Amino acid sequence: MRSTPFTFDISLPGGVPTVYDGTDVLIRIVRPLSAMRGQYADQEAYEALLAQGDTILYEVYEMRRPQVADEYIEIADGYIEIADEYIEVADAHVGLGELLHGTSIVHPGKVGDEYFMTKGHFHSVLDTAEVYYVLQGRGMMVMETPEEEWAVKELRPGRVLYVPPRWAHRSVNTGQGDLVFLFVYPAHAGHDYGTIETRGFRKLVVARDGQPHIVDNPRWCAQE
Amino acid sequence: MRSTPFTFDISLPGGVPTVYDGTDVLIRIVRPLSAMRGQYADQEAYEALLAQGDTILYEVYEMRRPQVADEYIEIADGYIEIADEYIEVADAHVGLGELLHGTSIVHPGKVGDEYFMTKGHFHSVLDTAEVYYVLQGRGMMVMETPEEEWAVKELRPGRVLYVPPRWAHRSVNTGQGDLVFLFVYPAHAGHDYGTIETRGFRKLVVARDGQPHIVDNPRWCAQE
Repeated sequence: MRSTPFTFDISLPGGVPTVYDGTDVLIRIVRPLSAMRGQYADQEAYEALLAQGDTILYEVYEMRRPQVADEYIEIADGYIEIADEYIEVADAHVGLGELLHGTSIVHPGKVGDEYFMTKGHFHSVLDTAEVYYVLQGRGMMVMETPEEEWAVKELRPGRVLYVPPRWAHRSVNTGQGDLVFLFVYPAHAGHDYGTIETRGFRKLVVARDGQPHIVDNPRWCAQE
Repeated sequence: MRSTPFTFDISLPGGVPTVYDGTDVLIRIVRPLSAMRGQYADQEAYEALLAQGDTILYEVYEMRRPQVADEYIEIADGYIEIADEYIEVADAHVGLGELLHGTSIVHPGKVGDEYFMTKGHFHSVLDTAEVYYVLQGRGMMVMETPEEEWAVKELRPGRVLYVPPRWAHRSVNTGQGDLVFLFVYPAHAGHDYGTIETRGFRKLVVARDGQPHIVDNPRWCAQE
C-alpha cells in the first residue's frame, strides 16, 4: 500500500481540492435533495422543491490513499464518485491511526424555512472526534449525544470547531453563498447515518425574519 | 470530564488562536534557539547567533480539553505554558479517538544558511498520521521513515499536507514572514523527539542564492 506523504490545494472561493500530487484520487460524494427525504420538517415544501428539480444540497470531497480507493470506485471527470454502499467498505481498508480528511461544500438555500444542511451522522465508533476548520461562508453545526445533550455552534471563516467523541453532527448553511470547511476525523470512525435518519436531531435551524433561529424539532424521537 | 463541543478562532495574519469559547485553556509551547542545540549543521553559526540572544524560533498553540490540562499547567497572560516534561503526562489523559489540534508559528530566520525550523519528531505510536493546513507563509515539510524513505513537500497557503503513519516530520520556514499552519493528529500519537535529536533528518533545507535547496545532512546517522 502506498504510504508516502501527499499534498493538495484548496482553491478559494470554491473549496474544491486539487487532486493529490502525483495521483488522481479524490472522492466526490454528492447529496441531492432526493437523498434527504424525511429529513426536513416541512415535507410539503420538500416535495414542492423536489418537483422543480433534484438540486444538489452539498458535496463532499474526501481524500483517500489511492490503494484504498481504487478497488471500489471509478474515475470520472478528473475526480472519483463513490456510491454510498462502498464508503463503509473503503473505510474498513484504512488503518487505525490514519486520518480521513477533505472539504465539504454546503450550498445555500432553504426547504420551507429550514436551511440546506447535511444528512448528519454519528460515527459508528462513537468514541471518535472530528475537527472542522471553516474556510468560507456562514453556518451552524447542530450536534447531540445519545444522551440528553445538544449543542449548536456558529461556523464562520477562520473558526475551528472540535466535535468531541459521541457527538452526532450536521452542518447547516445559514448564509447567502456556499459554506465551505475542511474536516479531519479518525479513519476508523465510520458513519452511522441510520440513527439520525430514523429519529432526526433534537434541534432545527430555521429562518425567522431572515435570521437563523434554533428551534425544537417537533418530530424528534428519543433514542431507545 | 467535560466533553462538550468547542470552537476557537484563528486570527490572520498572525495565527494565534483565541481561547476556546467559555474556557481559558490554550497551551503555548515556545521553542527558543537554546532548545535546538545540536540540531543545526553549522554549530559555529548557532553559537554566534545564540550569543546575541535566545530568540524564539517557533511557537505551538495546542488545544486541550480543559480537564486534561488543568492538573499540569498554570495560566499566565491569558494562555497556558506547559513544560516539556508534562506534555507526555497530559497526552496520556486524552482518550483514543480524540484529536489534538492547534496552530504552529515558525518565525523567519536562518542559522548559517539553514532556515529556522521545528525540532521535528516521530510519533511515539508510529502508526499515526497527521494533517496540516497552511494558513500563512512559505516553507517545507521534511519527512522520513525509520526505513530508507524520505520526502520534502512545499508548504504554501491553502495547501493540505497528509503525513501518513510512520513519517517523522519537521517544518521549515523558507519565507520572509511567519509560517503558520493548523495541525490535527490522533491524541494517542505521542511525541518521540529523541530519535531525531540523536540522529537528525537525512535532508536539510538551506538557502543557496536566496532560494531553498534540499541537501544531504552530512551528520545524519542511520538508525540501528
